[in-house]
Amino acid sequence: MRTLRIVNLLLLASIATAQAQLNLMPMPSTVQQGSGQWLIDRSFSVAVTGFHDASLEGGVQRFVAQLSRQTGIPFRTKAGSASPTLTIHAEHGRDQVQKLGEDESYELTIGSSGATLTAPTPLGILHGMETFLQLVQPSTTGFAVPVVTIKDQPRFPWRGLLIDVSRHFIPIEVLKRNLDGMAAVKMNVLHWHLSDDQGFRVESKRLPKLQEMGSEGLYYTQAEIRDFIAYAHDRGIRVIPEFDTPGHSRSWFLGYPELASSSGPFTLDADGPGSVTDPTREETYKFLDKFVDEMAKLFRDAYFHIGGDEVDGKYWDANPKIQAFKQAHGMKSNQDLQAYFNQRLQKILAKHHKTMIGWDEILRPDLPKTIVVQSWRGQQSLATAAQQGYSGLLSFGYYLDLMWPAARHYTIDPMSDAAATLSAEEKSRILGGEGCMWAEWVTPENIDSHIWPRNAVVAERLWSPQEVRDVDSMYTRLNAVSLHLETLGLTHRSARMHMLHRMAGPEDITPLRVLADVVEPVKDYTRWDDSKGPIDFHAPLIRMIDAVYPESDMARRFGKLVQTYIQSGYKDQAAEAQIKTFLIAWRDNDAKLHPLLGQSFLLQEVTPLSESLSAIGATGLQAVDYLDQSQPSPESWRTQQLALIDQAKARKADLLLMVVAAVQQLVESTGK
Amino acid sequence: MRTLRIVNLLLLASIATAQAQLNLMPMPSTVQQGSGQWLIDRSFSVAVTGFHDASLEGGVQRFVAQLSRQTGIPFRTKAGSASPTLTIHAEHGRDQVQKLGEDESYELTIGSSGATLTAPTPLGILHGMETFLQLVQPSTTGFAVPVVTIKDQPRFPWRGLLIDVSRHFIPIEVLKRNLDGMAAVKMNVLHWHLSDDQGFRVESKRLPKLQEMGSEGLYYTQAEIRDFIAYAHDRGIRVIPEFDTPGHSRSWFLGYPELASSSGPFTLDADGPGSVTDPTREETYKFLDKFVDEMAKLFRDAYFHIGGDEVDGKYWDANPKIQAFKQAHGMKSNQDLQAYFNQRLQKILAKHHKTMIGWDEILRPDLPKTIVVQSWRGQQSLATAAQQGYSGLLSFGYYLDLMWPAARHYTIDPMSDAAATLSAEEKSRILGGEGCMWAEWVTPENIDSHIWPRNAVVAERLWSPQEVRDVDSMYTRLNAVSLHLETLGLTHRSARMHMLHRMAGPEDITPLRVLADVVEPVKDYTRWDDSKGPIDFHAPLIRMIDAVYPESDMARRFGKLVQTYIQSGYKDQAAEAQIKTFLIAWRDNDAKLHPLLGQSFLLQEVTPLSESLSAIGATGLQAVDYLDQSQPSPESWRTQQLALIDQAKARKADLLLMVVAAVQQLVESTGK
Repeated sequence: MRTLRIVNLLLLASIATAQAQLNLMPMPSTVQQGSGQWLIDRSFSVAVTGFHDASLEGGVQRFVAQLSRQTGIPFRTKAGSASPTLTIHAEHGRDQVQKLGEDESYELTIGSSGATLTAPTPLGILHGMETFLQLVQPSTTGFAVPVVTIKDQPRFPWRGLLIDVSRHFIPIEVLKRNLDGMAAVKMNVLHWHLSDDQGFRVESKRLPKLQEMGSEGLYYTQAEIRDFIAYAHDRGIRVIPEFDTPGHSRSWFLGYPELASSSGPFTLDADGPGSVTDPTREETYKFLDKFVDEMAKLFRDAYFHIGGDEVDGKYWDANPKIQAFKQAHGMKSNQDLQAYFNQRLQKILAKHHKTMIGWDEILRPDLPKTIVVQSWRGQQSLATAAQQGYSGLLSFGYYLDLMWPAARHYTIDPMSDAAATLSAEEKSRILGGEGCMWAEWVTPENIDSHIWPRNAVVAERLWSPQEVRDVDSMYTRLNAVSLHLETLGLTHRSARMHMLHRMAGPEDITPLRVLADVVEPVKDYTRWDDSKGPIDFHAPLIRMIDAVYPESDMARRFGKLVQTYIQSGYKDQAAEAQIKTFLIAWRDNDAKLHPLLGQSFLLQEVTPLSESLSAIGATGLQAVDYLDQSQPSPESWRTQQLALIDQAKARKADLLLMVVAAVQQLVESTGK
Repeated sequence: MRTLRIVNLLLLASIATAQAQLNLMPMPSTVQQGSGQWLIDRSFSVAVTGFHDASLEGGVQRFVAQLSRQTGIPFRTKAGSASPTLTIHAEHGRDQVQKLGEDESYELTIGSSGATLTAPTPLGILHGMETFLQLVQPSTTGFAVPVVTIKDQPRFPWRGLLIDVSRHFIPIEVLKRNLDGMAAVKMNVLHWHLSDDQGFRVESKRLPKLQEMGSEGLYYTQAEIRDFIAYAHDRGIRVIPEFDTPGHSRSWFLGYPELASSSGPFTLDADGPGSVTDPTREETYKFLDKFVDEMAKLFRDAYFHIGGDEVDGKYWDANPKIQAFKQAHGMKSNQDLQAYFNQRLQKILAKHHKTMIGWDEILRPDLPKTIVVQSWRGQQSLATAAQQGYSGLLSFGYYLDLMWPAARHYTIDPMSDAAATLSAEEKSRILGGEGCMWAEWVTPENIDSHIWPRNAVVAERLWSPQEVRDVDSMYTRLNAVSLHLETLGLTHRSARMHMLHRMAGPEDITPLRVLADVVEPVKDYTRWDDSKGPIDFHAPLIRMIDAVYPESDMARRFGKLVQTYIQSGYKDQAAEAQIKTFLIAWRDNDAKLHPLLGQSFLLQEVTPLSESLSAIGATGLQAVDYLDQSQPSPESWRTQQLALIDQAKARKADLLLMVVAAVQQLVESTGK
């Protein structure tokens, strides 16, 4: 055995040559690989020694059930097996309400005939069991885990995922399977964005008009929430509620218009009048005190998110009473007014034993240093907060709704850029980060594919050593974890088939899948532009853009192939053959797809995209012919093809053809 | 509009040319197609007029939710919409306990701006809503249903599916999704095979050792059963319990060995001693009376299945007391003794207001004419029963565990063969039939794929007019219904991907899928032979044979292509090109698959199969070359190839390569 501390890309590469890479995500902090493996067969059994409670027992049962699902071996959890093959030992229990910074470390030692998993508390045991499950693979002699010693702990104590359930309501069972996914990649915070302009999603018994008038009937009961929090706790996940205020709060005003800074009547439809909370009325704070009192008991975590982002000051500017208040209190700006509001709200939270979190905009030196600032703006504001003594979380760069490739999220580190130059003490204030799933364009049907597998790389960034950043290794492991997540019940891969058939009917959709495989949704906030008016959140999300994966694996693989081919000086015959196979399939696809496209209102918009793919396929084939014959192409041909490529790059049906860039490289190479 | 009564294959063909075939399964008894369609958009709403109760309301809510899933339009069920677009009207309520022969008819009239669904009772409404859902398709202008008038009712009143939960326990949630599938194809009886040698699956409070010692903890509680029966009732499905006795009853004897005809100790493992119930002791009948008393209250249906099949007489022959009893009562055979047992048991059932059902073997003239005989042996025993005045059900030909293609089940009709010559009165005693899913080789993971979509053709056989029997039409509609069933939550298509990845690990499994697409499990009871000893029901079912579909669509399509090509005199260039594309893919597949096969203990057995596919692909290509060039092949070549084809036909890894026959046709054609 040799000791391995994963420190950098080079070392990772050297492991890959020496031993098969372990398909783990997030990569543990230290891995000692041995030789040989332990066969998982029907003799497998588990014993829990040391600390013991119902939650840990439930975790072990889920572990065995999942091992059963993965291997197909019908294990029965037998109490007190005579010679257990996996021994699980936690030193002591967990806190009843999971705390920030609780010890999550574990040690997993796998020998050739058994394994031991130890941890200070069940939190580490939960993480270690997930590692174990990711290690199980078929071998030549049976299902097996490799002989290995893993000592593991997280880099950051706060590794979260935000799910917005206001823009589109997401039912509890969908959230639960996402908790299962989070647990599998060792995330420990679900940030539940429970209210926004488009809906208030929590039952309040003391202020019932919040959900009665603000949710169209789509909200979680308190019983459901309690059950959900317990479900998360059993998986080592804290649940932080966010009630966004004073902006993003129109849904509150349907039931309680007196909270608003302007007059209604308010509706949840985007085309009705907007508003923001009136911070000048004492009644507002009485309301919030009553509200926080109730919610603080329901949500047990010590942290409470008040949003605080993107307050539209025009509603304050237009209200003479609010203007008078500002003047009377010597406030120079709406930022001053919001700071006043936040101070009042922070005192209410403190009274109910909650620590305030808010987005960048809440950062003002007059707030106590206990609060946490969550940055959607970038490492700079995180660094500024840390310098001022505030704790911070990074979400900039982790917005899963922006349709970035995994590699782009992966490169973003909470300690990079402005944060890199902080002192050690300042750095310690950076608690971690959160992937964010804003729900403008997701439904229960496709939210999984918008979160997974990409969220797993955010999880790795926040758990694994900073030096773990090899992109090829990441994609190999991401593919494995993606399949693993589907066995847990997530539908990020499988839902696409149903969505494509919805568009095409029961016909053979192979050519539609060929097209879907090479496109991605447009990026950032370009899907919608305000000239179209407000987004209709009741519209079905059933277009091609809603069905496809945010990242095209096929395009990435094709791009790699083209690189290999070009770098070989067009000599790599295997690469050339594969490239041609792809290009021929694309060139010929439109003819096969055309009959389908004509039949369905949902596919008509895709016609130009399909035609472009066909054209690009033909262009690529011609380019490869020139390259293969070592014959430069005529300039006129290149000019013509590059014009065609420019057209192919243009968005169509809000989609991008992701293989165009690689074909362009081929075409440009023919001129050299 | 023109009136259409579906009467025969020719007429069906004429519709196909005149109008697109409706993707309905089972095909309704009458269909009047009009012109045009009704667009299903956000304005869609439902009103229930006439009879109204919670069960119907639940059904309408499920219908709207499913319409939402199919279209992606987020419908909200609004009570009392001003101008409903779909009006649902039931004349009166259903029986509290669904009866055999209750009116299930309905009329569905769809115009260009709305629809009406009427029925005598909510049973017909349930069926009509399923028809409506199957009609929804994307059109050029939006989701739509065609303008049509359907008047529909079943051919047989008893359309069932047997699910064996003894050999492998199937959890309630898996059964529930299968109920959803049954409702979608208008089946109305779940025959629940609850006990057998390998497990007793029902909680008895009065005889608790039945489940405590006879189930390994895998049984349904009475609360679960009540909930399940209510779930089924809401979907128009009766639940008939089967407790198999006096044979197939070893699991009873673990807790109550005194019931057995021989001594134990008994275990659930197949290698322990077997036995059958002792029909000579009065205590046996006291036990059964107590048991039936409890179960008759739990299972509300009027029918109660006592099994009665395959009684192994050797246990009676070996018991001197039983021999003495037979002699004392003048019984000449074990059949006489079983008849005595059945008479006693029938009286117990009658006392508890239940009608007895049993398999062929119970048929004896000394039983009252009220009993029902279920035939696994064939139409002959069904006809004999009908002639003797007994009611009957056909299951012969509908055994889904035999891995037959859908077309083979489809051709079998309860009224054919021996039954065809019965008098009208005798025919009226044939109540219908049941698909049977015996569970020797299924688990919760793959039971869906062993039942669906093939069970839908049994459902059509039992619902639709006898003349509906065009196989091409059936397969087209079966494909549509298969996709539809997956949107209901069944996993018959999607589970395969997980199972293939379990065998292969996270690598790209495309070549494994290519192989899986052209194989089928061996047929009938040939998977296991007794020389291997008893089946181990605790062994994992994770081989290739467990993952593949019982029927290869790809092989069927390839066979059709080859027919077309041969019939064209080898002139059909399009068919030839498609045939060659398939053959090339198969020829080249082994090289791609080989690295995967070597890595996994589960795939090693598949190697010869993959090699055969490759060889067959090469052979087929050579044959097409001869045919294309109108050049007869040398006889030596044919001899050699036909030898190779013989090898390729042989089972490997308990699988059959289903494309061999068509390649053989190509090869043989080269000699003509």
